[in-house]
Amino acid sequence: PKIVILPGDGIGPEVTAAAVEVLREVAPDLTFEEHLIGGIAYEAHGEPFPQVTRDALTDADAVLLGTVGGPQNSPWNSLARPLRPESGLLALRKALGCYANLRPVRVQPGLEHLSPLKPELARGVDILIVRELLGGVYFDQDRSIDGDTAYNTMRYTTPEVERVAKMAFWAAEQRKGRVTSVDKANVLEVSELWRRDVQALRDREYRSIHLNHEYVDSVAMLIVSDPSRYDVIVTENLFGDILSDLAAVIPGSLGLMPSASLGDGAGLFEPIHGSAPDIAGKGIANPAAAIMSAAMLLRHGLKRSDAANQIERAVALALREEPTRDLGGKADTQTFTRAVLEAMG
Amino acid sequence: PKIVILPGDGIGPEVTAAAVEVLREVAPDLTFEEHLIGGIAYEAHGEPFPQVTRDALTDADAVLLGTVGGPQNSPWNSLARPLRPESGLLALRKALGCYANLRPVRVQPGLEHLSPLKPELARGVDILIVRELLGGVYFDQDRSIDGDTAYNTMRYTTPEVERVAKMAFWAAEQRKGRVTSVDKANVLEVSELWRRDVQALRDREYRSIHLNHEYVDSVAMLIVSDPSRYDVIVTENLFGDILSDLAAVIPGSLGLMPSASLGDGAGLFEPIHGSAPDIAGKGIANPAAAIMSAAMLLRHGLKRSDAANQIERAVALALREEPTRDLGGKADTQTFTRAVLEAMG
Ligand SMILES: CC(C)[C@H](C(=O)O)[C@@H](O)C(=O)O
Ligand SMILES: CC(C)[C@H](C(=O)O)[C@@H](O)C(=O)O
Repeated sequence: PKIVILPGDGIGPEVTAAAVEVLREVAPDLTFEEHLIGGIAYEAHGEPFPQVTRDALTDADAVLLGTVGGPQNSPWNSLARPLRPESGLLALRKALGCYANLRPVRVQPGLEHLSPLKPELARGVDILIVRELLGGVYFDQDRSIDGDTAYNTMRYTTPEVERVAKMAFWAAEQRKGRVTSVDKANVLEVSELWRRDVQALRDREYRSIHLNHEYVDSVAMLIVSDPSRYDVIVTENLFGDILSDLAAVIPGSLGLMPSASLGDGAGLFEPIHGSAPDIAGKGIANPAAAIMSAAMLLRHGLKRSDAANQIERAVALALREEPTRDLGGKADTQTFTRAVLEAMG
Repeated sequence: PKIVILPGDGIGPEVTAAAVEVLREVAPDLTFEEHLIGGIAYEAHGEPFPQVTRDALTDADAVLLGTVGGPQNSPWNSLARPLRPESGLLALRKALGCYANLRPVRVQPGLEHLSPLKPELARGVDILIVRELLGGVYFDQDRSIDGDTAYNTMRYTTPEVERVAKMAFWAAEQRKGRVTSVDKANVLEVSELWRRDVQALRDREYRSIHLNHEYVDSVAMLIVSDPSRYDVIVTENLFGDILSDLAAVIPGSLGLMPSASLGDGAGLFEPIHGSAPDIAGKGIANPAAAIMSAAMLLRHGLKRSDAANQIERAVALALREEPTRDLGGKADTQTFTRAVLEAMG
């Protein structure tokens, strides 16, 4: 199987290198091909998602992404919108057809103290957020800024809603069987469609799933005040952007959070943390999220659950034995990665 | 001065009655006129914001609102959209021209333990969220649900952005002078306009304000993991809906959270909690948020800061001496209200 590695900007190269080391160990048959994306691709090719990168995806079995984007004051941020690093990321998602972003939020036993929440609220939290990734206000072409008016359009069609809802129901079947669909149906027509279609699909094809619907403002509250009530959450792109980042703080370190974006072709796997330009190149970034993303790549992209489990167990161990600085420990990127490799035996 | 009271649904009548008792005590010259809104108005008049209610607003000096809406399974929720209780609320905001919703989020000293956050994070939190209330995806008429497609439009114009930004800068001048403007300018044109206009207004007229811009997903994280970094937050309608509810959980009880909606005419003052149909009519609802909303009415609606301060001090005392059930105490609505009246001397 061919894995395309897109290290990207900032700490991306360091953390993906660590993840590749681990992948080589558990799956010696993988081949790797590395390409540019984001700001670094703009520097080299004048665009954040160059044709050579796009071409490499055609026969990829999975894509491992690092991080994309520069510091707040980077000149990249004043480029025309299609040239900015983020646009490369959006174009990549689109090119791969990854319509479902899966974000597991799990508080590791023994690491409750890292959470900003009280330990009794953080304990046992195990949520999977499924965010629609190719629709809504992100990609709709009916958008403009002109003089003193600007607008964007939040649009969904039934097929777009159904395919991501299927992914959520499928995931829930392997978990506790409960799905919360999040919308703002008391105000938005687009949410009315979303709610109607998710419910109809459940009634037609997933009768064993317990489905409920909640408003996005209410979920923003409850995810903090009572996170254990959730199993799988499914929502549209913009709400998912906000809620998945919100939920990501519960375990206490963004450095621990992987993600998988799935669709009809090769999946895209990436840590959710940013490019952390302030510590880039110092060799101290926590590679745990990138390594966990590699585990998701094995599980969802290559259907190798055993290897995925092996990595996840090793990471859990390494986090206890060689915690990185963001977790109050001392390990640098190399030390942590070695600890993972050793824990895998 | 004439105050229009709109008790609304659920616990609305109980908590507004308590607030009116307190208002009578500190401001005997006020006159009150009560009208229907929400589900109860639909029952009586066939619409959630009847003409008689609308007419009463014309010479009002301020409006005190209770809560609007029925339980999740209420038949009101399957009415045509314009007949639902929420539509009455949106129409009321529009009729009053209240374009800025002010939501103070303050952790009362000694009540940190109520927060879902660790006490060291909750301590000292003092944020004012200014939410744009009449624009964006809520009111734009370019909206539709038709067959298998639906859309809404997130639109802003420069005057809409400037008037609410002014309100935020004005509020910040009376606080720590720091404003964080929240958008999703890395993806949305409408956010690009928002960011540009807020910055331009600051550079033109509010040079003493320290303004920064953050993305909505990032703010959703930081408001939980580091809430003390914020002074005033200003944002558009939908982001404000989500972030203000999110921030509202920090003090630990929605029962404590008031709001003020201001514009060119009479202001609208309401507790942020819902209509709590499960405890409606039992006399046990916590009226603190409604009473605090009455204090905001005095301060912002009638420019009577002394009376407002007097109420707020009394509520803080009463919360300690006669906490209600939602706070782990025993006081019912009447007992708590009496404690406030006594504390006012
Ligand atoms: C960088 C940005 C375009 C992106 C998004 O909003 O999707 C990011 O926030 C994410 O969640 O991956
Ligand atoms: C009830 C609903 C229409 C309303 C809103 O979204 O504005 C509510 O959530 C609020 O924040 O006051």
